[in-house]
Amino acid sequence: MKIKIAQFGLGPIGLETLRLAAAQPWVEVVGGVDIAPEKVGQDLARLTGRHSLRGRQVYRSHEELPQQPDLIFHTAVSDFRTAFRQLEPFARSGISVVSSCEELLFPGLREPKLAAQLDKLCRKAGARIIGTGVNPGFVMDVLPLCLTGVSQDVRAVHVQRVVNASTRREPLQRKIGSGLPPHEFRRLLRAGAAGHKGLKESLALLAEGLGWKLSKIVETGNAIVAEKTIQTPHLRVRRGQTCGLHQRAEGRVNGQTRLTLDLKMYLDAEDPHDAIQIEGNPPLNLVVNGGTAGDQATVAALVNTAARIFHAPPGLLLMTDLTLPRFSLPR
Amino acid sequence: MKIKIAQFGLGPIGLETLRLAAAQPWVEVVGGVDIAPEKVGQDLARLTGRHSLRGRQVYRSHEELPQQPDLIFHTAVSDFRTAFRQLEPFARSGISVVSSCEELLFPGLREPKLAAQLDKLCRKAGARIIGTGVNPGFVMDVLPLCLTGVSQDVRAVHVQRVVNASTRREPLQRKIGSGLPPHEFRRLLRAGAAGHKGLKESLALLAEGLGWKLSKIVETGNAIVAEKTIQTPHLRVRRGQTCGLHQRAEGRVNGQTRLTLDLKMYLDAEDPHDAIQIEGNPPLNLVVNGGTAGDQATVAALVNTAARIFHAPPGLLLMTDLTLPRFSLPR
Repeated sequence: MKIKIAQFGLGPIGLETLRLAAAQPWVEVVGGVDIAPEKVGQDLARLTGRHSLRGRQVYRSHEELPQQPDLIFHTAVSDFRTAFRQLEPFARSGISVVSSCEELLFPGLREPKLAAQLDKLCRKAGARIIGTGVNPGFVMDVLPLCLTGVSQDVRAVHVQRVVNASTRREPLQRKIGSGLPPHEFRRLLRAGAAGHKGLKESLALLAEGLGWKLSKIVETGNAIVAEKTIQTPHLRVRRGQTCGLHQRAEGRVNGQTRLTLDLKMYLDAEDPHDAIQIEGNPPLNLVVNGGTAGDQATVAALVNTAARIFHAPPGLLLMTDLTLPRFSLPR
Repeated sequence: MKIKIAQFGLGPIGLETLRLAAAQPWVEVVGGVDIAPEKVGQDLARLTGRHSLRGRQVYRSHEELPQQPDLIFHTAVSDFRTAFRQLEPFARSGISVVSSCEELLFPGLREPKLAAQLDKLCRKAGARIIGTGVNPGFVMDVLPLCLTGVSQDVRAVHVQRVVNASTRREPLQRKIGSGLPPHEFRRLLRAGAAGHKGLKESLALLAEGLGWKLSKIVETGNAIVAEKTIQTPHLRVRRGQTCGLHQRAEGRVNGQTRLTLDLKMYLDAEDPHDAIQIEGNPPLNLVVNGGTAGDQATVAALVNTAARIFHAPPGLLLMTDLTLPRFSLPR
């Protein structure tokens, strides 16, 4: 039994997701959907370089797809309010969704009413909707939770992620403020117009998974400033300009800081890694040396999650509702 | 809604499991079961040091318990054949089980018929039975599988665990051959009368989780020999005597070694750690510095698994059938 899928959003992550999905023996691709007029009508084989997709096209809306998909990969937006408008018709039609939308990792945090509404629609029509990825979706939430599976007691969880942005694609190098005057980037961060999305959602998923009620979430962001000229294949940053982002979120329970997420993404970062520390019994100290590669891991998380989502009951789901994450080539 | 539990097997791990379980707000302890005559009739408060258990006793059989439990923690044996005889009546009565029995992590490996039979009984009476722990059950199977949740492709998985047995309790120091002449310990290993249990089951769970069909499993064991005198709180080992165990299992798929599990448990081991390497896209390299503490983690895994088991459908279950492992104090 193959699962019929469609790809909503044909940017770099969407195309990569489609390539990986198309290679799975359990997937049948029915088409793509994008709102950009220049993409509509294009052939997916040409867009992805996968011959097996010849004849599958990009449509303006999911209603124009030649067959209704069982599941849509949604890689279009970061905020749940916008995602809600895109996903609501899928939920009503009973189409499941695996999305890279950062706020969808824990949609009830910012939009509890919209989340409840979408959950209700999903249950009614038998759809499952979930947000995932590498971060949010794995390094700062799912992996630390998994580690606490052998904890008798957890007092605090600390996660640190250092990403060397020099090895990443251009949009990410731009996103972290590369080349901007630090005061300008700080202003963008304060205005919410720049920065990594999903840190608060990771905190919320961690807290929910551990059964903790957060009394407060504090998020801060700052520019990392270049100490010398940095040249990447995509851009050049001079000394004193922004070369990256340092973002941090703390979760407090009854006034005590029990969750800290610390993210640094900057050009020429040395020793990129993910580190997880569980204060508790037993104490646990985990390091992913070299870190967990961003875009590749996000695409993998989307496809691997799709392979497990139909085992869960219908609804707007969290990663803690699904079975153990794992590589899922076959069914 | 509390879950009524009973503890089957009141050795060190069983008592520790009972202590941790009794501290959970979602647990009501109905009693203990042990086949040792000297334990029958004893008060659980005295055995565990937990006042809240006053009046709860040890019985000869689960049928004598004052109330039927919803779930039994089973910490009695390593082999599935023996466990089967103990668990069959529970399954028939619809009582669920979380067990530290090593072979129960993947019971179909050695005893596919008995496993199918137990699964059938479970489904019929609505019971869930699962085996878990720190190893097998976490470090060499569940944690590496979780890591592949962000893998687009997995070519091989290698896990290495180094345990400093000097910090562990006496039975473990004996189990790894401490003080025996190396040829004697090797003979015991070959005869299956010594060594770590569950390495093959970890391999089987890994392979199943990844969707691989193992064509061959090769397991080897050897003595680690003391290079100088070692003194622990429990025993003394002289130079040339056995001070530990080196055990290794390889899983082959179509003749190619794609899974390796390497376990060293020895006295005065330096740099104890767990290391997981995923060969694939992206490559992943994880280290738990200091390692994952054995007994504490096993007890935690049992209780945390019990908190999630009722979300899964009835049957003889694998850890890949349950939702994401996590610390589960509250419900």
